[in-house]
Amino acid sequence: MHSSPKPLGEFDLIERFFKTPAASQASNSAINLGIGDDCALINPPSGEEIAITSDMLVEGRHFLKGADPEQLGRKALAVNLSDLAAMGAKPLGFNLSIALPSMNEQWLEAFSKGLFSIANQFACPLIGGDTTAGPLTISIATLGSTPPGKAIRRSGSKVDDEVWVSGTMGDARLTLAALRHEIDLPINDLQKIEHRMHQPTPRIELGLRLREIASAALDVSDGLLGDLQHILRQSQVDAEIFLERLPKSDVLKKQSIQTQNQFAACGGDDYELCFTAPKNQHQTILEIGKALNLPLTCIGRIIHKKNDSPQVHILNSDGKILSDTEAAQFLKSFDHFAA
Amino acid sequence: MHSSPKPLGEFDLIERFFKTPAASQASNSAINLGIGDDCALINPPSGEEIAITSDMLVEGRHFLKGADPEQLGRKALAVNLSDLAAMGAKPLGFNLSIALPSMNEQWLEAFSKGLFSIANQFACPLIGGDTTAGPLTISIATLGSTPPGKAIRRSGSKVDDEVWVSGTMGDARLTLAALRHEIDLPINDLQKIEHRMHQPTPRIELGLRLREIASAALDVSDGLLGDLQHILRQSQVDAEIFLERLPKSDVLKKQSIQTQNQFAACGGDDYELCFTAPKNQHQTILEIGKALNLPLTCIGRIIHKKNDSPQVHILNSDGKILSDTEAAQFLKSFDHFAA
Repeated sequence: MHSSPKPLGEFDLIERFFKTPAASQASNSAINLGIGDDCALINPPSGEEIAITSDMLVEGRHFLKGADPEQLGRKALAVNLSDLAAMGAKPLGFNLSIALPSMNEQWLEAFSKGLFSIANQFACPLIGGDTTAGPLTISIATLGSTPPGKAIRRSGSKVDDEVWVSGTMGDARLTLAALRHEIDLPINDLQKIEHRMHQPTPRIELGLRLREIASAALDVSDGLLGDLQHILRQSQVDAEIFLERLPKSDVLKKQSIQTQNQFAACGGDDYELCFTAPKNQHQTILEIGKALNLPLTCIGRIIHKKNDSPQVHILNSDGKILSDTEAAQFLKSFDHFAA
Repeated sequence: MHSSPKPLGEFDLIERFFKTPAASQASNSAINLGIGDDCALINPPSGEEIAITSDMLVEGRHFLKGADPEQLGRKALAVNLSDLAAMGAKPLGFNLSIALPSMNEQWLEAFSKGLFSIANQFACPLIGGDTTAGPLTISIATLGSTPPGKAIRRSGSKVDDEVWVSGTMGDARLTLAALRHEIDLPINDLQKIEHRMHQPTPRIELGLRLREIASAALDVSDGLLGDLQHILRQSQVDAEIFLERLPKSDVLKKQSIQTQNQFAACGGDDYELCFTAPKNQHQTILEIGKALNLPLTCIGRIIHKKNDSPQVHILNSDGKILSDTEAAQFLKSFDHFAA
């Protein structure tokens, strides 16, 4: 039986663009069997728990038509790894399912280059997946592992814990605003921050170091205050957040105070970690930040729940809690089903 | 911070339609943490290997616009479980990523009903995923486990092994032909076979029983002869297949011999298992079929490779090997990038 004379079928496509070099698979000794069978087989570190996360990116929704394919490849995997980071899990490997409107070899080459650059950087090989024709959609499922009971869940925040964030907040949102011409940003300012939107860095190493330290964590994808609510809901606590403590880049600091606060507090796509930890870990956390060359900033604290549903209380520069109406303008958190 | 007044956001959607009842999660003791955190956490059976598989279903490509959502929910998970079955893996849980063109609550209710009916039947709970707006696309990643070294790979076929298939072949393709009006099928015949296309049964139990018996296996999704080639390529062997031995339903048997052969040999979407096993397992395999009330049919044998690239040699009813030209008409195997 001879191979059919199709221009480039599903199997050729995988073989050509998505087959991880054996050397790269070998870099992760957990992979027993990669692409090419009904399933991939993974041998998790002895006794460890498996963490799994999935993200789906749709053209026109999560990225613009015509988006740079190499950046897209990087980002598609990076946002998945960011979820592992938020659990304190170590990457094992990922599955890629992709729907492509056409067989654009140049696009595929660039996409796979970006994808593998992140895969190699974080020793997280491609182990399987699916390809099909369809509207451009990228769906990635990533596996990681943690020692039993050591994953950082959202439900562990305790009253008096401090609330922390890594890096700076709001630059991805500011980039988006500039690209949408909502804000007029000088080109050299844009160049300083646009990687924050296009090439987020999963904070894997930070997550691993926070395993025994943080009481809860998540990655900031939809906006800090909205995301923080998930921790509050699952931990059944409130939080006080000092707006002026939110870490901002020099570029964002040039904007109006209102823009700074809104973008830092509610802008999505930063993929930094937000976590809570007991007060006595304060110094240790600052040292982790130094060791990783990644600013870690304490932005508030966990308090007793005041009402039925957990709340973020936003404090302005004079330490005054914003009213519901005032707070409302900060709550324009990104929701994929919102208008 | 109060929940925003959106009609139905991503989190409500998950909460309402996709949150596995705690009881159902408890049915699988491997799940340490389900939906609602950055990752799900799974505790695989001690020392076992993890199997992972992904499938992406796109409207207009894998199912018709307006397809019954309950059947779609069933099928979306069933085809994934079928890959686990082909490895001899036991289901652990799955992640669902879904892009929806709109919030159609009736559709979601039916889809989730179908999905959970399969999830419950095979003790494979929904543990996480992603929802977004976009062209209707369903992407599922499923995890399973096998004792170390016991997964049935595609690469294990040996010369003189017998080639087997489960169930009957070609009914899903016949259903499609009837729905497309390519073939005029009496309504009561269609009713007898259409579940084969809409509600394929993953052969999980068969896969588990074949663990120590089969030398190679896969599930037939793209067409028997085309899929068998994957085993041949990975095992570096040829196969002889007797066309007249292909198991066919009574409904398919009413069609012309040519249609019977083409649909049974090349029709996709059957999701039966094709496997190879040493001759001395012949009787054991027949007994497994009896125990499972699932016909298992020996359709040929593995032989030495005759050329560089492994081939299926198709034998007609007088045991004559079809020429390349004759064989070509059987090779219209389904490829998602073919016209």
